[in-house]
Amino acid sequence: MSRILRIGGAQMGPVQKAESRQAVVARMLDLLAQASAQKCDLVVYPELALTTFFPRWYMTEQNEVDSWFERDMPNAATRPLFKAAAAARIGLSFGYAELTPDGRRFNTAILADRDARIVGKYRKVHLPGHAEYDSARSFQHLEKRYFEPGDLGFPVWRCFGGIVGLCICNDRRWPETYRVMALQGVELIVLGYNTPAGNSQKAEEGPERRRFHNRLCLQAGAYQNSTWVVAVAKGGVEDGHAMIAGSMTVNPDGEIVAEAKTEDDELIVADCDLDATLFGKQTVFDFARHRRIEHYGRITAQTGIVRPRE
Amino acid sequence: MSRILRIGGAQMGPVQKAESRQAVVARMLDLLAQASAQKCDLVVYPELALTTFFPRWYMTEQNEVDSWFERDMPNAATRPLFKAAAAARIGLSFGYAELTPDGRRFNTAILADRDARIVGKYRKVHLPGHAEYDSARSFQHLEKRYFEPGDLGFPVWRCFGGIVGLCICNDRRWPETYRVMALQGVELIVLGYNTPAGNSQKAEEGPERRRFHNRLCLQAGAYQNSTWVVAVAKGGVEDGHAMIAGSMTVNPDGEIVAEAKTEDDELIVADCDLDATLFGKQTVFDFARHRRIEHYGRITAQTGIVRPRE
Repeated sequence: MSRILRIGGAQMGPVQKAESRQAVVARMLDLLAQASAQKCDLVVYPELALTTFFPRWYMTEQNEVDSWFERDMPNAATRPLFKAAAAARIGLSFGYAELTPDGRRFNTAILADRDARIVGKYRKVHLPGHAEYDSARSFQHLEKRYFEPGDLGFPVWRCFGGIVGLCICNDRRWPETYRVMALQGVELIVLGYNTPAGNSQKAEEGPERRRFHNRLCLQAGAYQNSTWVVAVAKGGVEDGHAMIAGSMTVNPDGEIVAEAKTEDDELIVADCDLDATLFGKQTVFDFARHRRIEHYGRITAQTGIVRPRE
Repeated sequence: MSRILRIGGAQMGPVQKAESRQAVVARMLDLLAQASAQKCDLVVYPELALTTFFPRWYMTEQNEVDSWFERDMPNAATRPLFKAAAAARIGLSFGYAELTPDGRRFNTAILADRDARIVGKYRKVHLPGHAEYDSARSFQHLEKRYFEPGDLGFPVWRCFGGIVGLCICNDRRWPETYRVMALQGVELIVLGYNTPAGNSQKAEEGPERRRFHNRLCLQAGAYQNSTWVVAVAKGGVEDGHAMIAGSMTVNPDGEIVAEAKTEDDELIVADCDLDATLFGKQTVFDFARHRRIEHYGRITAQTGIVRPRE
């Protein structure tokens, strides 16, 4: 039986602070309609898709912070998206800020099946940035202020005829992210991102080098774990802050097979044959034959660097 | 104090089966003289530099196998190289097949300081290929037959004013290799490789894709660990078997700063500022602030894939 999934990467242009969730969902519905017209099986939206990338703003009032969070999913704003996806028999993945009933806050993504049932939830593990206002930066990146690190690990799920995992934005720079999922047989990793076009701590690092790092991590993660990777950005300028865009689909050989051409709402479509993951998993990256865990101990035994004695 | 090291990557063209170690060392001495003329601090030669890449040949006679191994280092054949390096005050790294006094066989690399004293030894952990003759392959790759996996882990050493680590060939495809060294503060990883220009199990995977995979792994390993990587090939055609060449030096941003233009003996020289590793280690890849080892457990707890239940 063929395991070719047609996946739509639904890049989104900027979402301004003033934009309502209803207006954003209307844009998401339009991308869903395009995906449906192109017979996609799954459509993937960015990290924190429903709002602007609010962690760039320093806030001290908890009410203001919480206005960016969702207490339920689906909720009133997103229910039309779930309904339309179920009607079109298309799976969904998107990111949002999650406020739990017991008051915990996560940078979260969900995966929904063709009936728009949520079958997978992931909470971002690698939160970049900082927790307090940092006057040395050219702009703020306060994910460590507004979220706690994900508490669900890197689960994968059997769905869409394969094994699918989620991660979010900065997770893609960390090889551990892909590896933990690959050790569970992952065949498709989908992720959203909001990546600033400049480095707030290094003025000379502009968008070209940032896009290079983005591609490099996604391609290496796909190749070294013999998995498809679909990475979907928000792009363009949100209230004066430019993002890198550059959504792409990478095959298990590490090659880019689809890539966004704009920095705006744009659907990139690729046919992803999950069986193309088998060759790598059975040969050069046959973990069972080649990995040597007796020499990897530091990876889980220590968080930071321990240098050899002088 | 400046920590800029000038490193010569001494790519070597093919070494035929019939070529003596003395003839090979003469070529290595010529590359050393070029490195000395260009004021290099360290010169890096390939994996199994002293002989042809013999694991492509299926052998059943242990005497024949052992003829490719070195019982001492330095030994009669390599002593002129160590002497010349000490005279030039240049450090050395190269790979060779090591036969220990108690009869164990490893794919080994050494690092020697400016006095040509061996300060570091590494034994290849990730042995590719297979142990028995495989008639389904277009050529053999019998590293698992002739070597046992390295037993020294991934150590690093303080030398040349920085923290230096070694790995060998296929190790570079495994993110664990770089990470274990980065968790010890590595600033420079040097490695040699002998990579066939074709995939013995996938005829359509030719040299271009193999070079892409080589670059991808080296660049991602450098960027994600904020370290210099100097990777040095044997290239050209050894007794009918083509290799990819493509030696390169990669900076801690993942960018290639020097790359071989030929498939023959060729010195590539780059000035590697070890202080350029600091920014990444203090910001986006500040392990102490960002790694979440509580979610990495599978990396050291399981060797092969454990899929979720159907």
